[in-house]
Amino acid sequence: MELTLSALASQLGLALQGSDRIFSGLNTLEAATESEISFLSNPKYVQHLASSKACAVIVSQEFAPQVAGSALISDNPYRDFARAAAFFAHKHGEETAVNPLSVIHPTAQLGKNVVVYPHAFIGPRACVGNNCIIFPGAYIGEDCSLGDNCIIYPNAVIMAGVTLGKDCILHPGAVLGADGFGFVRVAGQVQKIPQIGTVVLADGVDVGANSCIDRSTLGATRIGKDTKIDNLVQIGHNVEVGEHCFLISQVGIAGSTKTGNRVTLAGQAGIAGHLHIGDDVTVGPQAGVAKDIPAGTSGSGSPFMEGRTFMRNAVVLPKLADMYRRLQLLEKELASLKTALSNNVETS
Amino acid sequence: MELTLSALASQLGLALQGSDRIFSGLNTLEAATESEISFLSNPKYVQHLASSKACAVIVSQEFAPQVAGSALISDNPYRDFARAAAFFAHKHGEETAVNPLSVIHPTAQLGKNVVVYPHAFIGPRACVGNNCIIFPGAYIGEDCSLGDNCIIYPNAVIMAGVTLGKDCILHPGAVLGADGFGFVRVAGQVQKIPQIGTVVLADGVDVGANSCIDRSTLGATRIGKDTKIDNLVQIGHNVEVGEHCFLISQVGIAGSTKTGNRVTLAGQAGIAGHLHIGDDVTVGPQAGVAKDIPAGTSGSGSPFMEGRTFMRNAVVLPKLADMYRRLQLLEKELASLKTALSNNVETS
Amino acid sequence: MELTLSALASQLGLALQGSDRIFSGLNTLEAATESEISFLSNPKYVQHLASSKACAVIVSQEFAPQVAGSALISDNPYRDFARAAAFFAHKHGEETAVNPLSVIHPTAQLGKNVVVYPHAFIGPRACVGNNCIIFPGAYIGEDCSLGDNCIIYPNAVIMAGVTLGKDCILHPGAVLGADGFGFVRVAGQVQKIPQIGTVVLADGVDVGANSCIDRSTLGATRIGKDTKIDNLVQIGHNVEVGEHCFLISQVGIAGSTKTGNRVTLAGQAGIAGHLHIGDDVTVGPQAGVAKDIPAGTSGSGSPFMEGRTFMRNAVVLPKLADMYRRLQLLEKELASLKTALSNNVETS
Repeated sequence: MELTLSALASQLGLALQGSDRIFSGLNTLEAATESEISFLSNPKYVQHLASSKACAVIVSQEFAPQVAGSALISDNPYRDFARAAAFFAHKHGEETAVNPLSVIHPTAQLGKNVVVYPHAFIGPRACVGNNCIIFPGAYIGEDCSLGDNCIIYPNAVIMAGVTLGKDCILHPGAVLGADGFGFVRVAGQVQKIPQIGTVVLADGVDVGANSCIDRSTLGATRIGKDTKIDNLVQIGHNVEVGEHCFLISQVGIAGSTKTGNRVTLAGQAGIAGHLHIGDDVTVGPQAGVAKDIPAGTSGSGSPFMEGRTFMRNAVVLPKLADMYRRLQLLEKELASLKTALSNNVETS
Repeated sequence: MELTLSALASQLGLALQGSDRIFSGLNTLEAATESEISFLSNPKYVQHLASSKACAVIVSQEFAPQVAGSALISDNPYRDFARAAAFFAHKHGEETAVNPLSVIHPTAQLGKNVVVYPHAFIGPRACVGNNCIIFPGAYIGEDCSLGDNCIIYPNAVIMAGVTLGKDCILHPGAVLGADGFGFVRVAGQVQKIPQIGTVVLADGVDVGANSCIDRSTLGATRIGKDTKIDNLVQIGHNVEVGEHCFLISQVGIAGSTKTGNRVTLAGQAGIAGHLHIGDDVTVGPQAGVAKDIPAGTSGSGSPFMEGRTFMRNAVVLPKLADMYRRLQLLEKELASLKTALSNNVETS
Repeated sequence: MELTLSALASQLGLALQGSDRIFSGLNTLEAATESEISFLSNPKYVQHLASSKACAVIVSQEFAPQVAGSALISDNPYRDFARAAAFFAHKHGEETAVNPLSVIHPTAQLGKNVVVYPHAFIGPRACVGNNCIIFPGAYIGEDCSLGDNCIIYPNAVIMAGVTLGKDCILHPGAVLGADGFGFVRVAGQVQKIPQIGTVVLADGVDVGANSCIDRSTLGATRIGKDTKIDNLVQIGHNVEVGEHCFLISQVGIAGSTKTGNRVTLAGQAGIAGHLHIGDDVTVGPQAGVAKDIPAGTSGSGSPFMEGRTFMRNAVVLPKLADMYRRLQLLEKELASLKTALSNNVETS
């Protein structure tokens, strides 16, 4: 596909500085050719502006003078890059109908324009909304319900009775509704707690590749509207995640914890069970959260600390052994001083 | 399904306090309706007792007076909730036979009442015990052996030659017997160490969704009886886990480490290779274990510390930057004092 | 299969000390029978030499006198064990052709001697090189390209347009080319950044079970030649990993980070986004890397510290609460001393 810079500028409501040209794609500043455009969002890469071969760069007014080619002036280059990229994005897969090599239970109900690939499985009484796409190896258990426009990528698994809103995406290998980890040790035996609840995703939830959201013991494990979950994330049973949250890769949330809206949990962070994380909280990478966090807090560390405390501690932590040495020295010096003074007193 | 409170009390050997009623399910204290029962195990939720609509609550004698409806008195409400829930649990899936859309090698042997879903694969000479259920997309490699009553959920993978005892459950996407991570750098090249061992699960082992247990280099990676493994857990080659252990989500155990029985590893904990973890050890979340741990130890942290040391340190850690400032101040004050005293001495 | 010790010694260029015998396998020192050989690489296990029933042990000259049976003298026992094991290794699976129960798009191209199992899916215009083996449930999206001799184990997923060099292995459940985690919050809404890039694996790359390598926003996420990735690893979009790297289980690398060659990231380590990790860097387990690391550095910790600093700190860390107590005591003592001296001065 080809577009002119002026057409793109017009579509996105951006000002074009420099000559108009035809382009056919987007790329990074370093890799772009003359027929591609690029963008600058992270100032870390500003040194690439001058040398980039891109025929145009989506950029803030501040950095526009440094662009070698044309500039598309944006007050949010990352957002406008996203909008430009949408013209060149294409969806995965090319199947257009229900393939006869899929297995669909006679009691399952499919909406209009549903695509089902070979080797997908749709169980008894499952309801699949309009325009859903079910890839090979996907499993949709009995009594599941999928809203319109959901995409279930290859080998994703939805166990019995789970509900998805509309516009949800399960990336490959994601698992919804496996039994929560509920066991009790009784008289030297391990007894399983039946997990008779379910999982409910609101509209617009994405679940990353190989991420797991367990069914609740009772009631439902819930993920709020437009919350986006990265790869290899674990959500325990009875967890409730709010709306517009970002859960980055390898995050784990233990059972029964509830989060507010617009929460961001960075990569590998772990949240203990039975906690409450307020609205607009940001938790740093690898943080270990063992207590409730009030709304609006940003922080990190294990134990979790408010942001400024964490930053100051992170600077000091590498000095810990040195601190210990200095502490020992102080103790010795103070002891010597006291001895000396005591001798003085005695001898005076 | 409907039950009376008195029937349930009789079945579980509990005392019923309050009026008898019919109920049809279980739910949390907050979500239960008048036709459901609930339970109180974690005292954190005691404030919900008074307002719960549940027609009865399984509860310890201590909290029974605070229950709004009827009470079922238990000395272990979590255990008795589990027993009550068992009446309402239903197993996943509804297939009842070997589906012709599965692929079963002619040399494989299936026991009685085995269920095999479409798109499952059972390889040469594999033996599948009585009453096993093999879900869609499950892969059972050549020469595998499954004891009676195993459940292999969708897209779980068992590579060649792996052995499962009876009553084992593989949750969706679990992988047993992939090659262990064995490589050696030789003269600038990376050489693979063939992984010619296997994996052996004893009876009653559960493996969580998308968890991985690698085949050993030699001999077998072994998981003991009734050990329960949560989602996204990694067990390296040649590891041996004891009986009745709980390995919580995202735990990793590096190669050749051995654990005793009744060990609990909390979420995201990591255990280095070639270690020995004693019986009845409890390792806290995100702990990093680099040394052997004697039997009976509870602790956490990275490096791993015994519980009381860990707790005291966790309290002090957020004060670290403050400690540094105070240490610098002490150094200055002591230096000033010494200078002053030295001047005094000189001038006296 | 049976071999004589002398034949093995001759094949591997090792000296045989002790009597020649026939053996039929390899095992650990502890588990080996008289018809198996073993090896000693980790000195931790040297005490097993005397009691091992192995008919021979591959061992360094230093430890050879302690071997009970025969010894095969090696300057690198682990490497030579690997070479010996190769005689006894057998590849997974027994299918030998393209199974008619697979689904292969008519526009896909398969090389010579390709094996495709039942329930595998190969999409439009995909190219699969000679001798590739595609296991059940594997998904190869449209426009993918696989070099010769690749093995795609059960339920591994390769999304559209991804390229693999030759001799690559995807272990079960690995996912290549799922959409990178790109979202931007705009005016209270969450907007997806289209991920229009791809993933490129060079020759000889292994990707562990259930590991994920995301497609880039633009350009390609790249993994260098002979780099080996363990299970449950997350590689974010636009990451570039060098050659001959080892990424151990549960490692996470955030978006746009680049690593040099021969980098080792130990288990559960996390690397933030947009960083540069130099050649020959070794990062310890659970380390949290938030800054660039110069070539040749070894270290660990969160924040990441150079190795000696990390080791010294790790020793001191368990003393932190004690340090705090001692610091408080010093403050009190110094204050007392100052008061006493000040009183002395006042009263003198």
